[in-house]
Amino acid sequence: MADHQQIFDQLCDHYRETAKLENINSLLGWDERVLLPENAGAYRADQITLLSGMIHDRNTDPKIGAWLEELHESPLTEEPNTPAEATIRRIKSDYLKQVKLPKRLVEEFSHARIIGQQTWVKARAENNFGTFEPILDKLISLSRETAEAIGYQGEQYDALLDFYEPEAKTAQVRGVLETLKDQLVPLVAEIKESGRTPNMDILKRHYPIAQQEILGKSAASQIGFDFSAGRLDVTHHPFCTTIGPYDIRITTRYDENFFPSAFFSTLHEAGHGLYEQGLPKNWFGLPPGNAASLGIHESQSRLWENIVGRSYAFWSHFYSDARKMFPDALSDVPIGDFHFAINEVTPSLIRVEADEATYNLHIIIRFELEQALLSGDLPVKDLPGAWNEKYTQQLGITPTSDADGCLQDVHWSAGLMGYFPTYSLGNIYSAQLLEQAREDLGDLDGMFAAGEFMPLLDWLRENVHQHGECYPGAELVERVCGDPIDSTPLIRYLRAKLGPLYGIEH
Amino acid sequence: MADHQQIFDQLCDHYRETAKLENINSLLGWDERVLLPENAGAYRADQITLLSGMIHDRNTDPKIGAWLEELHESPLTEEPNTPAEATIRRIKSDYLKQVKLPKRLVEEFSHARIIGQQTWVKARAENNFGTFEPILDKLISLSRETAEAIGYQGEQYDALLDFYEPEAKTAQVRGVLETLKDQLVPLVAEIKESGRTPNMDILKRHYPIAQQEILGKSAASQIGFDFSAGRLDVTHHPFCTTIGPYDIRITTRYDENFFPSAFFSTLHEAGHGLYEQGLPKNWFGLPPGNAASLGIHESQSRLWENIVGRSYAFWSHFYSDARKMFPDALSDVPIGDFHFAINEVTPSLIRVEADEATYNLHIIIRFELEQALLSGDLPVKDLPGAWNEKYTQQLGITPTSDADGCLQDVHWSAGLMGYFPTYSLGNIYSAQLLEQAREDLGDLDGMFAAGEFMPLLDWLRENVHQHGECYPGAELVERVCGDPIDSTPLIRYLRAKLGPLYGIEH
Repeated sequence: MADHQQIFDQLCDHYRETAKLENINSLLGWDERVLLPENAGAYRADQITLLSGMIHDRNTDPKIGAWLEELHESPLTEEPNTPAEATIRRIKSDYLKQVKLPKRLVEEFSHARIIGQQTWVKARAENNFGTFEPILDKLISLSRETAEAIGYQGEQYDALLDFYEPEAKTAQVRGVLETLKDQLVPLVAEIKESGRTPNMDILKRHYPIAQQEILGKSAASQIGFDFSAGRLDVTHHPFCTTIGPYDIRITTRYDENFFPSAFFSTLHEAGHGLYEQGLPKNWFGLPPGNAASLGIHESQSRLWENIVGRSYAFWSHFYSDARKMFPDALSDVPIGDFHFAINEVTPSLIRVEADEATYNLHIIIRFELEQALLSGDLPVKDLPGAWNEKYTQQLGITPTSDADGCLQDVHWSAGLMGYFPTYSLGNIYSAQLLEQAREDLGDLDGMFAAGEFMPLLDWLRENVHQHGECYPGAELVERVCGDPIDSTPLIRYLRAKLGPLYGIEH
Repeated sequence: MADHQQIFDQLCDHYRETAKLENINSLLGWDERVLLPENAGAYRADQITLLSGMIHDRNTDPKIGAWLEELHESPLTEEPNTPAEATIRRIKSDYLKQVKLPKRLVEEFSHARIIGQQTWVKARAENNFGTFEPILDKLISLSRETAEAIGYQGEQYDALLDFYEPEAKTAQVRGVLETLKDQLVPLVAEIKESGRTPNMDILKRHYPIAQQEILGKSAASQIGFDFSAGRLDVTHHPFCTTIGPYDIRITTRYDENFFPSAFFSTLHEAGHGLYEQGLPKNWFGLPPGNAASLGIHESQSRLWENIVGRSYAFWSHFYSDARKMFPDALSDVPIGDFHFAINEVTPSLIRVEADEATYNLHIIIRFELEQALLSGDLPVKDLPGAWNEKYTQQLGITPTSDADGCLQDVHWSAGLMGYFPTYSLGNIYSAQLLEQAREDLGDLDGMFAAGEFMPLLDWLRENVHQHGECYPGAELVERVCGDPIDSTPLIRYLRAKLGPLYGIEH
C-alpha cells in the first residue's frame, strides 16, 4: 500500500505540473481573444502549438503507462468514485486516448484551431463563408482522423462526444434530444398561437455600456463570483477559462441598445465561473478538481443565467438596482413587463440570444449538421444551404446572411465537433438539479427575492462542485436527483414559467 | 561549409524555439503586473518558475556545447559582427554563463523574483520596508551566488553588469559616472543659483485620464509606435515587454493632477517599443534580432522621452493638440511657460519623475548602494538609512518615507542588481547619437516642429536597430558616432537647452 501511495503521488505530481502548462496555454488563448494586437496572431499560434506539443508529450509519457500498470487493481481503486479511484480511472481513460493520437495530428489540429478561429473572426465580420470553408474542411478531416485514431464501439461520433461528455453515447443523446424536440415543438406552437407578445422595445432602449458593466459585475458578485480570484473582460464570443485555481476569467459582450445581451451572458459565464471556483482546490489539475463534463458545466451556467436570472423572484430583488442604473430606460417600465420581455419566446437566428424554449432547437440543428459533416453526407461547401434549410424548417425563420447563420458560433472554427449536444444536456440537467434543490431547500424564490443566493450556491457546492470529476455527468445528476437523465423537469419548469405569461397550459 | 551551415541552422532553430517559451514567460509576467486577480499570485509564481526551469534546461542543453564546438573557428565566425558571427559569439557567451548556474539556483532566483515583486507592491503601498527586507536580503544573496557561479576577472559586480551591458566593466562605468557627476554637480548648482523657477502649477491642474490616454497614444503613434503590433496598458511601474515579433507591449501610469507623469513615461516606453519593433524580424529570438544592451535600449527611450519629447520643437508641433485635449488646463498657458515647466530642474525624490539634469544623480546613488549591498558593506536593514543619507548629501533632499525612498523602484525586488547604471549609459549614448543624427540629417528641430519624426526613426533603424546585438553597446555607438563613450555631448545638450531657460552659461 505504501508503494501504491508513492506511485499515486508521482502520478499526481506529473499531472499537476502538466496542468500548469495547460493553464499557461489557456492564458495564451484568453489573451489572444481579449487583447492580442492585430498582427500578432501567427506567432501566438506558434506559441500555442509548441506548448500543446509539450503537453501532449507529457500526457503520453510512457511513465504514465507504467504507473497505471502498477496501480491497476490496487487498493486505491477498490472504492468507486473516491478521489483516488476517479483520478486513476480518468487518467487511464485520457492516457489511452492520448497515446493513440500521433503527435503530428495533435500539433496539426492545435495549429488549425488557431488559424480556424482567426479566419472565422474575419469571415464572420465580412460575412464571407468562402474564406472560412477550407479551414473548416481541414478541421473536419482532423476530427474524423482523431475519432478513427482513438476508436469507438458504436458510432464515430461517440469518440468525439466522449471528449466533452465522458461515457455518454451518441445513440442515447440522440434519443433524449428527440424526446425533447417532441416536447418543445408543441410548446413553441402553443406560445405562437397564444397571440401574446411582450413589449420588446423596452429592452432595446439606450443602456450605457459603463452602467451595464457595473450592473453585470454586481450581479455576478451577488450570486457569488469571487473577483479576487477572477476577472470579467470583453470578447466577441463570451467564454470562461481557468488560468489557475484562483484565476477564473469570464468574458461578455456589450450592446448598448439591447440589455439582455451582456447581462445574461455575464450571468451565464459567471455560472461557469462559480463551478470552477467551487471545485476542490487541493485537487486542482487532477480529475477530482476538474469539472465532471461539459454538460454539467453548462447546467451550472444555464441554471444561473435562466432558472435563477430570468425568474420573477430574482428581479423582485434586482429590478430596483437596474432602474437606478438605467433610469431613462426603465423608470416607466413595470417589473412584470420587464420580466415578460426577458422571457420572450420567439424563433430567432442567433443561438446565444435565443430564448429558453427555442434554444435547444438551435442545438439540435447543429447536432444534426455536425454529424452529417463528419460522416461526409454533407459536403462543407453545402453547409450554408443546409443550415438555412434547417432553420427554415425547424424554427420557421431563414438566415439572411452566413454571419447570422452558420458563421455565428466559434465552436467549429476551434475544432470542437461533438461539443454542441452538451448544451442541451446542460439545460436538461439544470432543471433536474433545480427541482431537487427546491425540494431540499424549500422556498428558493423567497430567498432570491431577498437577494439570498448563497443557500443555492452552497447546495450546488455540496452536491455538484465538490465531487469534481469523480462521477460521470449523468451519474452525478442521478445520484443527486434520484432519476436518470430526463427532459421532463425542463419542460415542467418551462411550462410553469411561460404558462402564466402566455396564457397556455402549465 | 555546408555542414557548418546545417549545424548553425540547428542552433538557430533551438534558440528560436526557446524564444517562444521566453516570450510566453514574458506574457505571464506582463499579465501578472497588468491584470492578475488578487489571489492568483502564488500559482502564477509556480507557472513562471516551471517555465523558467524548462528554459534553463534548453539553454544548458549539452547539444549547444557540441554545436558551438563544431562552429568554433568555422568560416561562419571569420567576419566579425556579421549576423552569423554575432549569433555564435553571443550564444557562446550566454551558454557558458548558463551552464555555470545550477538549475536549483535559477529556479530559486526565479521564484524569489516573483515573491519579491509581489511583496514589494504591498510593502510600497504600506510604506513598510520591514516586510520587504527578508526577500531583498535573499535576492542579494542569490545575486552574489550567481556572480560567484559565473565568475569574473575584475570585480564581483562585473559578472552581474554583464547580463545587462555585455562586455562593459564596472571600473570603466564607475569612471564614466564619476566624470558625469563632476559635470552635473556644477550644472545643478548654477541652475539653483539662477533663482529662476518655472510655474509648475500649470502641470498640476486637472488633466482627465481619458484625455491623457488619447494624447499619449496619439504621441506614441506619431513617433512611430505601431499599435497593430503592440499595446499600451496601465501598471504601477511602467515597462516595455516583448511577447512576440509583432506584439510589443508598453505600460504607463496616470495621475490626473500631474500631466508629465503619464505622457513622458508613455514616450519613454514607446521609445523602448520602437527599438523592439525595429529589430530585424527575420532574426527574432536570436542575437541579431535582440537589443544590443540595456544601455542602448535606454538610449532609445530617453531619446524619445527627453531629447525629442521635451524639446521646444516637439511642442511647437504638439502643443495645439494638447490644448485641444485640455482646454481648462492649458488655454491660458503660453507654450514657453509650458516648455519651461516640463524642463524644470529641481532635486526630487522619485527617480522616474526626476528631471534630466538630476536624473543621473539618482542612478549614481543606486549604483553606489547596490555595490555596497552586494559586497556586504551595507547590511540590508541599514538600506533605508543609507538611502536617505545619500539623498540628503547628493541631492540635498531627504525622503520622508521609504515608499518615496528605497522602496520606489521595482528593480531590486525583481533581483535586477547591476541594472541601474545602464540608465546613465543610456542617457550618455542618447546624446551622442542625437548629436550625430543632427549632423547627418540637418535641421531635426525643423522636422519635429512640422511633426516629422520618421527621418529620425529611419536613421535610428538604420544605424542602431537593424544591427541587433551584432555589436556590444559601446562599440555600436562608437561605430555610429566615431567617438568612444563620452558624457560631454549629454552635458552639451543639457546646457544648450537649460542655459536659455535658466539664464546660465551654455
